[in-house]
Amino acid sequence: MDRFNQYVEANADRFVGELISLARQPSIAAQGIGLRETAEMVRARLERLGATARLIEVEGGAPVVFGELGDRGPTLMIYNHYDVQPPEPLHLWTTPAFEPAIRDGKLYARGVADNKGNTMARLQAVEAWLATQGDLPVRLRWVVEGEEEVGSVHLESFVEANEGLLRGADGCLWEAGSRDVAERPMLTCGLKGIMYVELRVRGASRDLHSSTATIVPNPAWRLVWALSTLKDEHDRITIDGYLDHVAPPPSEAVAVAEQIPFDEAALKQSYGIDQFINGVTGREAVYKNLFMPTCTICGLDSGYTGEGSKTVLPSQAMAKVDLRLVPNLLPDLALRLLREHLDRRGFTDIEIIDRGGEPPARSPVDSKVALAARRAAEIVYNQPPVVYPNMSGSGPQYYLCDHLGIPAVSSGCGYSGSNVHAPDENIRLADYFDHIRFMGELIRAFGA
Amino acid sequence: MDRFNQYVEANADRFVGELISLARQPSIAAQGIGLRETAEMVRARLERLGATARLIEVEGGAPVVFGELGDRGPTLMIYNHYDVQPPEPLHLWTTPAFEPAIRDGKLYARGVADNKGNTMARLQAVEAWLATQGDLPVRLRWVVEGEEEVGSVHLESFVEANEGLLRGADGCLWEAGSRDVAERPMLTCGLKGIMYVELRVRGASRDLHSSTATIVPNPAWRLVWALSTLKDEHDRITIDGYLDHVAPPPSEAVAVAEQIPFDEAALKQSYGIDQFINGVTGREAVYKNLFMPTCTICGLDSGYTGEGSKTVLPSQAMAKVDLRLVPNLLPDLALRLLREHLDRRGFTDIEIIDRGGEPPARSPVDSKVALAARRAAEIVYNQPPVVYPNMSGSGPQYYLCDHLGIPAVSSGCGYSGSNVHAPDENIRLADYFDHIRFMGELIRAFGA
Repeated sequence: MDRFNQYVEANADRFVGELISLARQPSIAAQGIGLRETAEMVRARLERLGATARLIEVEGGAPVVFGELGDRGPTLMIYNHYDVQPPEPLHLWTTPAFEPAIRDGKLYARGVADNKGNTMARLQAVEAWLATQGDLPVRLRWVVEGEEEVGSVHLESFVEANEGLLRGADGCLWEAGSRDVAERPMLTCGLKGIMYVELRVRGASRDLHSSTATIVPNPAWRLVWALSTLKDEHDRITIDGYLDHVAPPPSEAVAVAEQIPFDEAALKQSYGIDQFINGVTGREAVYKNLFMPTCTICGLDSGYTGEGSKTVLPSQAMAKVDLRLVPNLLPDLALRLLREHLDRRGFTDIEIIDRGGEPPARSPVDSKVALAARRAAEIVYNQPPVVYPNMSGSGPQYYLCDHLGIPAVSSGCGYSGSNVHAPDENIRLADYFDHIRFMGELIRAFGA
Repeated sequence: MDRFNQYVEANADRFVGELISLARQPSIAAQGIGLRETAEMVRARLERLGATARLIEVEGGAPVVFGELGDRGPTLMIYNHYDVQPPEPLHLWTTPAFEPAIRDGKLYARGVADNKGNTMARLQAVEAWLATQGDLPVRLRWVVEGEEEVGSVHLESFVEANEGLLRGADGCLWEAGSRDVAERPMLTCGLKGIMYVELRVRGASRDLHSSTATIVPNPAWRLVWALSTLKDEHDRITIDGYLDHVAPPPSEAVAVAEQIPFDEAALKQSYGIDQFINGVTGREAVYKNLFMPTCTICGLDSGYTGEGSKTVLPSQAMAKVDLRLVPNLLPDLALRLLREHLDRRGFTDIEIIDRGGEPPARSPVDSKVALAARRAAEIVYNQPPVVYPNMSGSGPQYYLCDHLGIPAVSSGCGYSGSNVHAPDENIRLADYFDHIRFMGELIRAFGA
């Protein structure tokens, strides 16, 4: 691969320039800004590789860029997204979010880490391969969506409508990844699922003077009582049946989790806490983080929340709750268990609003694509990657991979200071070129 | 009193105009807005009556307007407050809170019912008396404070520092009152006490991605668990020892409470509820409302409370809680019981911020001023008033009355739809003029 690497080096400035052009184009899914324009840029870049590429329309959503290249060997699906998070709060950016700027070897712009850097690096790796190694030893199949940052709301229906195009891939390279705080490359093979709900309770038809609290029901109390039945002080989720559906992690997943470095003191310091929840520590904390579901109050709102005191009996109360899910705890199941749990305790007055869900995804840590990614990472980073059976976060991997029987692995050009979803999002250019080389080695290993 | 009533009628437009001017002036104690300006307006109005009036400064607080008028007969203290509740939530007001508007014979503005309407009506009654009846048969002594809506935090020290000015009054007309749902005038002889606290919990040093909820403590959960130990789903307050300190009401208080009409269906309809808390009903609801303490969540705030979903692990959580107190449950005692209760259950991480307290107050139902008020009400409203041994609300009556041995009675221009402390606060103008007439009759009866 010497010629591949020389080609990347010789074209480094142009490659960074291409990424800058892509990052300069806003593509904010939450605000519906620039999505089609960005999809067209990705399609055009695919065509310049010689790929067949087109936009597949999604009713009421942003188009998916679909591309194919190569006519022999196993099929590798590449999943990326061209949309980005909103840039707000704008005043916290050192340079404007959509005016990419290089400082100290880092490229700053919204989306460079999540997910335009990985999108472009992988395309450029294919260019370098074709220019230096000849024909591709794999069939590549790109799926680049434009709604990842708003929960991939149409990806499930896209997969249903286009199953014939997608089925049969032998592996999938998922969108993103980073080096960890100790600069070790990370590979991940799955994601937790999520079910996001809003619980709402209503009381009197308007806020009342709190002196009426002797006889008028208080929705804030109803909410507190209901919530307190969902999880106990020992951090055990007590939704009826919830934990019964947690599949024990496969032994191979536990085996790789055992190897994950865990600098407990550094993590606590970074979070500003003295101890983890319920005093959990060491390897138990790692397993809990990877393999256990959550039930998290993300927001609470009721009555008067301003300065000082206001003696009001609230007329409504609201909690936002996310449930991070693991196999076999699926979003619809979690939602049903929650409803039944509340009803069984008389909390039929608590309305549950479904704010969207994604099933958990789990690929084997020793699939063909995972093993090829490990080999590629070892070569590029000169050290074995840290393999995560899954992330503790969520994403739409289930629809594209688990559902179609395609194993996935994820890796990317981020690092621990990438400020993903935050102001001053950035990547280190050295990591960017590493990801191009990683993609080259992955093509080689997967096609071997 | 025909000439008195004719005078009120002849000056009706000007009187309403004066109230509108006072209501247009914001005076939000919780936010420190407009207090001195409003105090000056009240002082100036007293001086236009011929009263001696001045602002008595209160260190670190809003000034108290103190006024005196009359040189013979028994002394009647008049207690009012010129501050109002915050106007939020602003979007629920039909017309802006500080832009008084008349619709269908009602005047809408923050403070018209609580307490600027009564304040102004009583001043105008004295004007009408002087213009039509000659000298006052009573000595009037006004105490108009500016911190009632934040728990009269400095009234106790004001009374201590000015005891010589205050002691020796023969009775006190307290700030407020209303007609009940069946349009009967109400008189009240006491108040519940209150202890207002803010409970605060902190977690990580910043909001984190909610995927970390497996191992990072969530202050919102801590708060929910702690709150859920304070009161149970059967509406029983479970703060250790709290109910042990509830004194049984005196028999004369129970005797008048027995006579209080209670239109359960109308009250439920007015609140927009199907049943009272825990299914309490009939006379039991009346006694509970008058004689039992409360523990009320007035506000909840944590994490993300905006539109849609945001997967955040909150770094802090807050609840505002008020405890309405009855004899002998005093604010300091309630605060201590709460702290001990939480500590005993391991909630030492929950900070309790003292937002002020007031002891419960109880005057005899047959004092000179109470009997004079009954007579005045009978004349003005053409029916006997309903006498309450105490209100279910709170106020600083203990400091000014119980502590100085001055019996109190309360009456005012509100009605059951006044939306006190809520958006669209309003009074009916007919009630306003009735309260002016009531004050005239009270002067006559008390001075007889």
